[in-house]
Amino acid sequence: MSLLVQKYGGTSVGSIEKIRDVAERVIEYHKDGSKMVVVLSAMSGQTDALIKLAHEMIVVPDSRELDVLMSTGEQVSVALFAMAVKSMGYDASSLLGFQVSIQTDHIYGKARIQEIETGRILKELEQNRIVAVAGFQGMDEHGNITTLGRGGSDTTAVALAAALNADVCEIFTDVDGVYTADPNVCPKARKLDAISYEEMLELSSAGAKVLEIRSVEFAKKFNVPIHVRSTFTKERGTMVVAETKDMEKVLVSGVALNKNEARITIKKVPDQPGIAAQIFEPVFQAGIVVDMIVQNTSEEGLTDLTFTVLKPDFLSTMKLVREVAKKIGAEKVLGDENIAKVSIVGVGMRTHAGVAQKMFWALAKENINIMMISTSEIKVSCVIEEKYKELAVRVLHEAFGLENDQSGK
Amino acid sequence: MSLLVQKYGGTSVGSIEKIRDVAERVIEYHKDGSKMVVVLSAMSGQTDALIKLAHEMIVVPDSRELDVLMSTGEQVSVALFAMAVKSMGYDASSLLGFQVSIQTDHIYGKARIQEIETGRILKELEQNRIVAVAGFQGMDEHGNITTLGRGGSDTTAVALAAALNADVCEIFTDVDGVYTADPNVCPKARKLDAISYEEMLELSSAGAKVLEIRSVEFAKKFNVPIHVRSTFTKERGTMVVAETKDMEKVLVSGVALNKNEARITIKKVPDQPGIAAQIFEPVFQAGIVVDMIVQNTSEEGLTDLTFTVLKPDFLSTMKLVREVAKKIGAEKVLGDENIAKVSIVGVGMRTHAGVAQKMFWALAKENINIMMISTSEIKVSCVIEEKYKELAVRVLHEAFGLENDQSGK
Repeated sequence: MSLLVQKYGGTSVGSIEKIRDVAERVIEYHKDGSKMVVVLSAMSGQTDALIKLAHEMIVVPDSRELDVLMSTGEQVSVALFAMAVKSMGYDASSLLGFQVSIQTDHIYGKARIQEIETGRILKELEQNRIVAVAGFQGMDEHGNITTLGRGGSDTTAVALAAALNADVCEIFTDVDGVYTADPNVCPKARKLDAISYEEMLELSSAGAKVLEIRSVEFAKKFNVPIHVRSTFTKERGTMVVAETKDMEKVLVSGVALNKNEARITIKKVPDQPGIAAQIFEPVFQAGIVVDMIVQNTSEEGLTDLTFTVLKPDFLSTMKLVREVAKKIGAEKVLGDENIAKVSIVGVGMRTHAGVAQKMFWALAKENINIMMISTSEIKVSCVIEEKYKELAVRVLHEAFGLENDQSGK
Repeated sequence: MSLLVQKYGGTSVGSIEKIRDVAERVIEYHKDGSKMVVVLSAMSGQTDALIKLAHEMIVVPDSRELDVLMSTGEQVSVALFAMAVKSMGYDASSLLGFQVSIQTDHIYGKARIQEIETGRILKELEQNRIVAVAGFQGMDEHGNITTLGRGGSDTTAVALAAALNADVCEIFTDVDGVYTADPNVCPKARKLDAISYEEMLELSSAGAKVLEIRSVEFAKKFNVPIHVRSTFTKERGTMVVAETKDMEKVLVSGVALNKNEARITIKKVPDQPGIAAQIFEPVFQAGIVVDMIVQNTSEEGLTDLTFTVLKPDFLSTMKLVREVAKKIGAEKVLGDENIAKVSIVGVGMRTHAGVAQKMFWALAKENINIMMISTSEIKVSCVIEEKYKELAVRVLHEAFGLENDQSGK
């Protein structure tokens, strides 16, 4: 008998009617003989409404109490879902984070799952019940309610699938799978049958928003197959799985676009040991995440240092960097928000040379200037002028033949 | 150092602004050196909104899941309250039923508190924190969320006060105390300084809606002084306490009016052993609560049996009773919804004869016909025609001189 963990996002449970639809769908699987564990997000709009309430109280709400407040969203969803299932003549039981229990560390607002007890869930399943687990929430060692951060329900689902040794973790969402590129930007984008954890991680960090990145890390660590699919169709979506031999045949699996970064350049920095550490110290202290960092080779003892941060952090970072630039005697600091990052991702790159080169030529042919380059084992990212972003995606999609299934299957 | 348990109802925490007001008020007590445990209800309207959501899903929602849903209301209140306190520079911590923990039986929707652990609360108080406990909710032995029924937050507060050995349990509400009669009906009604548990119980069961009846039972059992007072003034309210010598000097403490009962009469029932049991069996089986039961003396082996039920149960009870009347060969069944019950309550009755007689005369003088009478040690209730209800309250209030403080204090 198979055990399925399914996760439904906020839009999938956004109304009483939609929750009923999900209940019907889950009951179908149950009738087919699968043991069903269903992870639900808060009804769409609910999370924002709760945040608004907290901010009406105080600009920066206490993080412990914010988690107590936020976790009610998923609690409402699982209660209504279990009611729906029972009203259809099947048995169900809702379980909250503390009831499972899902143990986390005590970092409110972005807690990490440390351990999941499976006893209660297994007992409910033995009673032939459909189990509805509130996503996004856990409990620390002192019994305090914690939440896992935005998108945390994906992580709940994958972690449960790992703990329960489920056959698969199905993530139901409003898109029907992982695409070779954003279909809104690139009409020729093609849905992938399968993608490796590593590629999914690189795509997610490169800007694709299908899965929360920590859920993919979790799936990779415990080798949980994820099936990303649509709530609104019965079609097969995309499997996110461990790398297979077949995957290496494909040079590039997808093109990702990230429009949410800004670039900062410090010109003519004295090139001496410890200078980078000195520059980034205040930025890291402020909790600002730096993505790409590029340092040119030195010329006459002076070098240029360029890096990117998320756009919301741009102004505060500029301020910090201007101060430190003054202190270390750099010439000036330049900032640019009108950039975009295009990335190609594929495990096939490992064994094939010339992929980056092909990318550079493809962009050059359209006169798209490359401002920064960074590479990983299975990814090449280029920062370009923002106005070329859609064109760049389409050009790369075509250059690597992504409109055709190259897996040979 | 004193330990106070305060309970604030839904209207007292009905908006962000009101929650802030409550926080300010609680902080005043805290600054004066009291250890503060605050029990909160759901924001007014919230409970009804959640019930509506459940009923949109299904006419009769599953009771376990309804409790999971309902308990989010108080969770929102305590989180927002703790945020408010912290925003004002004082430390606070919210605790839910399972975190305290408040252990109950497993009767969803009207669970009874069985045990309260005080360790966590005491630990929070030691840290100089204001503790906000979610009212109305508990946890059964299997870790399921339970709720205590409407008005259950009063019971939470009193039970906590008992468990913590608090100096007093203050119930803040939208009235400023317990009155000799409903001031809306009887303009001469006077606020009582003190009233005994027994009197409060009788007044509550007779229709006064100041305190939930189970909370008074709890307070009586554990001898917890309750102070009923207004959220919106600083004035002293009414103390509900164990009976004192002084109280016996007062014949009648209050007049209560219950408009929510209906009367059912079974005419000419064969007067034989077991007949009452036979009549009420289906009514009790249906979970319908019967209040007054009056059986006339038998005449030619036939008797009339009259009883009252809550108005919402009237039609279903009539149906059940008609069936049983047929079976036992009674003549007919009569029903009357246009009745009201007026009651006089006072511990002084125990030691003074003629109180009932005085009541009957007072009503007779205004030509108010008495349809049913029932008495307890400290209460006399009369069922009358509904149209006389306000007049009856005023007449009795005057007859027993309730507009004057008779305690001699």
